[in-house]
Formats: sequence, structure tokens, C-alpha cells
Amino acid sequence: MEDEPSISKEITKSTDFYIGILLAVCSSLFIGTSFIIKKISLTRLSRIGALRAGAGGFGYLKDWFWWLGISAMGFGEILNFAAYGFAPASVVTPLGALSVLVSAILASKFLNEKLTIVGKLGCLLCILGSTMIILHAPKEEPLENLNLFLSKLQEPAFAHYMICMVVLCSAILCCLGPRFGSRYVCVYITLCSAIGGITVMACKAIGLALKSYSALLSYPTFWLLSTMILIMAVCICVQITYLNRTLDLFNASIVTPTYYVFFTGFVIAESIVLFREWELMTAGDMAGALCGFFVTVVAVFVLSTSKDGHQQTRHLGVNTYFAVKS
Amino acid sequence: MEDEPSISKEITKSTDFYIGILLAVCSSLFIGTSFIIKKISLTRLSRIGALRAGAGGFGYLKDWFWWLGISAMGFGEILNFAAYGFAPASVVTPLGALSVLVSAILASKFLNEKLTIVGKLGCLLCILGSTMIILHAPKEEPLENLNLFLSKLQEPAFAHYMICMVVLCSAILCCLGPRFGSRYVCVYITLCSAIGGITVMACKAIGLALKSYSALLSYPTFWLLSTMILIMAVCICVQITYLNRTLDLFNASIVTPTYYVFFTGFVIAESIVLFREWELMTAGDMAGALCGFFVTVVAVFVLSTSKDGHQQTRHLGVNTYFAVKS
Repeated sequence: MEDEPSISKEITKSTDFYIGILLAVCSSLFIGTSFIIKKISLTRLSRIGALRAGAGGFGYLKDWFWWLGISAMGFGEILNFAAYGFAPASVVTPLGALSVLVSAILASKFLNEKLTIVGKLGCLLCILGSTMIILHAPKEEPLENLNLFLSKLQEPAFAHYMICMVVLCSAILCCLGPRFGSRYVCVYITLCSAIGGITVMACKAIGLALKSYSALLSYPTFWLLSTMILIMAVCICVQITYLNRTLDLFNASIVTPTYYVFFTGFVIAESIVLFREWELMTAGDMAGALCGFFVTVVAVFVLSTSKDGHQQTRHLGVNTYFAVKS
Repeated sequence: MEDEPSISKEITKSTDFYIGILLAVCSSLFIGTSFIIKKISLTRLSRIGALRAGAGGFGYLKDWFWWLGISAMGFGEILNFAAYGFAPASVVTPLGALSVLVSAILASKFLNEKLTIVGKLGCLLCILGSTMIILHAPKEEPLENLNLFLSKLQEPAFAHYMICMVVLCSAILCCLGPRFGSRYVCVYITLCSAIGGITVMACKAIGLALKSYSALLSYPTFWLLSTMILIMAVCICVQITYLNRTLDLFNASIVTPTYYVFFTGFVIAESIVLFREWELMTAGDMAGALCGFFVTVVAVFVLSTSKDGHQQTRHLGVNTYFAVKS
């Protein structure tokens, strides 16, 4: 009889994991679909002769179909935030690749963008890689509630990680960015990814807070939640600014996979250092998760290069945005 | 103290598994290298003006370098046979894909065949897929010795499997082959793969017999071994004949991946039905092994299509052969 509470706790943990996976997959479905809806709306507008978005037109703001796309994206983002509250960050972030898959499949169906044999292989690899990541993810979430999360923030590892991030970001913003930013794609992508990692941390806190409704009402949680929302908003703004700058300088087919690799890399590093997610994994699980990650990287690379550079899916984690170039 | 024998048995089992993997990987190394050595020899001969093999020349028989290639291939095959005695067939057969990787890498180094970015991705996928297959392979070998193997042969499952194979092969040889063989690549490939499955079974028996030297000296083992060697020789001859026929009709870049998929498929089916290898696996391991298999299939497909059709690696399991077309 003594074991019963621990068994029920185990079951809750396992259920939480699958809820998180489901939320992450649904999030990718909505975000992948949203790009196609917005693209259809923009194509329709250009057909009826409205001034194109690329030329400074804002006709799309009057189209209900465009707003449907925006709503789908917003809903997808909310699901993504929620996923961080249930499943480990090291599995939710890489699953963002599925939105690239969804938009590639839907584009071939609704936008008549032909899916080549290479594109089809990319889709298959994306599914296989994601399956491997899920199979080998740490099934137990070390951060069950907000209190555990807060205790992690007080550990020296967190302070060290944040100092490294501040030094790295300052170096890129003040010195490396202006000098090498327009020559190497990695420079601003590293900045965006480092800040993206902090966004994920804030998302995690918000997700955990939203999970326990009772905790929301207490004063310290409310204060923490507001801070985290503020941090998240600032981080997302910085990310969007510098990603758009990178996209202006480089082709999206290079930016998308590079950003996926760097962003997921930072989140995995954060998961190891900060959340200690990998302490629960065996060597075999780590090898399997890395294999899955690399297969997904190949898939994102293949899917990004098999399409043309315009209006690509750029959701690769917590931040979604769209650049209307066509 | 009671647990000691079972622990030492566990350790032996685990060691056996890794010996089997090592043998399979080394086998692929030798076989992959052998193709390059033979190709270098043939190129050298054509440079000094000898009659080319494709035009009926036999000058290569006088070249020691060509014989070095043949020896490497023979040694690789012996290692492959031995691997079946140590590790489950469902892991040794898919690892044959590594020889495609080895020959692709060596060809780019020694034959100046440029490895494109797609080819490099294929190499990466081949390594990732193989790692996944090894990670999720059944670590315990259900067929530890020849007696267990013999007891499996007396089970009804074996009789049913053999009846199915005989019916399938007869149907292809008498009816489907002559009618559809020259139109669909799958027809003769199915025949070769079904017979390849039986070759693997014979290999398994030979491997197990060679493993226990003491058993070799007993009369029934000797008789069984001779029968198995005979079966294997006949099967390999049939396989080579019909694979060459298929290669005359279709491009090697289609035949190689199709054969890999069908052959490995038959061996996995045999492993499940006959050797019960998959009974020891969890659902997660099965999903992981299948993911690894499909990633390897994509890799073999990519590596086969990124090269031209001549002198490709055609080792995809127990049988190696080469078709000199150039």
C-alpha cells in the first residue's frame, strides 16, 4: 500500500509527457497550416489587383482569410507555450521541425508547389527523426512545478549560464555583429538562438504556472509570471529583429536549417545545464536522441532547399514570424 | 551466490552481441574497400590499353591488385558469416548498408568521384540509421547454440515459412517472372530476397557451428554443416543469376535500394517468425529499429542515386558480386 502514491505519481508524470508531446505536435500542425492560409490569402489579393505586401500594400489586413491564418498561428503558439509546461524542453523544441513538414505537405496540396522526390524524402526523415526524439526523450520531467523551477534559478549553474549568455550576446551586438554579421550566417543566428534559449526558459515558467491554477492566485507566482512574460516579450522582439536582418542578408534555405540547429542546440545545452533533463537518461537514450536530432536537421535542410526561398515556414521553436517577400 | 552463473551468462550474451556488431562493421569495411580496389585495378588496366572487362577482356585476372580486391571481399564475407553466429540476423543484415557508405567515401577519395552535398547527407544518414538499428537491436540472442537452432527448425513455424517461400519462388520462376519480370523491378528482386533470407538462415547455422569448435567434431553437426553449406551455395548462385538479370534490365540506382529494402524485409520477417528475435523487444525498441531501418533505406537510396550506375557496390547482406559494365 505504501507504493500507491509513487505509482500514481509515475502515471501522472507519464501522462504529462504525452500531453506535452500532443500539444507540441498540434502546435506544429496549426503553425504549419497558418503559413499556407496566409500565403493563399496573399495570392488571392494579388490576383484581384491589390497592392502587394512586398510593395508596401496593407490590403491583407482587410481579408478575413489572412486573419484566420494569424489566429491559427496564435493558437499554435499558445499550444507550444503549454507544451513546455508538460514535456521536457529538449523534446518540445526539436519537434518544431514538424511545422516545416506540415507546411511542405500542405503547400504541395493547396499551393501547387510540386513536392519533389527529395522533398518527399525530407518529409519521411522529418517524421522518423521526430519519432526518435520522442522515443528517447527523458520521460520524467525534472521540473514538475514552479517551486522546483524557482529553486533551479537559485543554483550557481543558472548564474553561470546567464553570465555566459550575456557575454556572448554583448560580444555579438557590440563587436562581432557589425564586423562579421553580413559575411557569416552564423553570427546573428547565434544571437537569436542564445536569446531563444532564454525565451524557452521563460515559456517553461509560464507553462508551469498556468498548469497549476491554484498557484496562479498566490502573490509571488503572479509577480514571477509578469516578469517572465516581460522577459519573453523582449526576447522575442530581439529575436525577430535580428532574424529579419539575417533573412535580408542570406537566403532562407540556409537560414532556416542553421537557425534550427543553433536554436535546438542552445535549448539542449540549457536543458542539460539548467534543467538537468539529461541526468535521467541512459547513454543509449542520449545517443538515440542525438541521432533523431541529426536526422531532423537533415530533414529541415532538405525541406528548406527543395523549396524556393519565398514565404518559408520560419517557426522553429517558440517564435513564429513571417516575412512577406513575394 | 546463486545469481552468479546467470550474471556471467548475461555478460557473455552482451559480449557476443558487440562481437557480432564489430564483425558486421568490419565486414562492411572490407567489402566496401574491395569494390574500390577492383575499380582501381580495372581503371589501371584500361589505361595501359588492355581489353576492357565489359568487352570480354580477362586481363584483370593477371593483376595482383585485382586479386587483392577479391581477397578483401572474400575476407569481408567470412566476417559477415561469423557475425551471424554472434548477433541477431535482424541487426547484421541492415548493417550491410555500411558497405555502400564505405565505398562512397573511398570513391570520393581514391577515384575522384565527387561526393555531392546530397551524397554527404546520405553518408550521415547511413551512420545515423545504423546507430539507431544497433541501439534498438534485441541485445539477447535467442539462438545461442546449434541445438536451439535445430529445435527451431522442427517447429511448425519453420515448415509454414518454407512452404510460403517455395510457393512464392515457384510462382515467380514459372508464372510472374516471365510475364512481368522485364517490366517491374520488384519481381526478380522479391525472388532474390526470399532466397537471400534462406541464405541468411544457412549462414546463421554455419556461424553457430563454427562458434563452438567442440560441436564441430560430432557427427550430426558435421552432417548439418555440410547440408547448410550446400544450401547456401545453391541459394547464392540463384541470387547472383537473377540479380544480374535484373541489373541488365534496370538501372543499378533503382536495383540497389530496392534490393536492400526487400532483402532486409525478408530477413526481419524471418527473424520474427523463425528466430523469435523480436519477442525480446519492447514496442519502443521495435519503433526505434524500424525508424533506423527507414533512415538507412533513405541513405542507401540517396547514395545509390547520387552516383552513376556503373560499378556500384552491390553488397547488401550475405552475397557480394560485381557486374563489370564499364
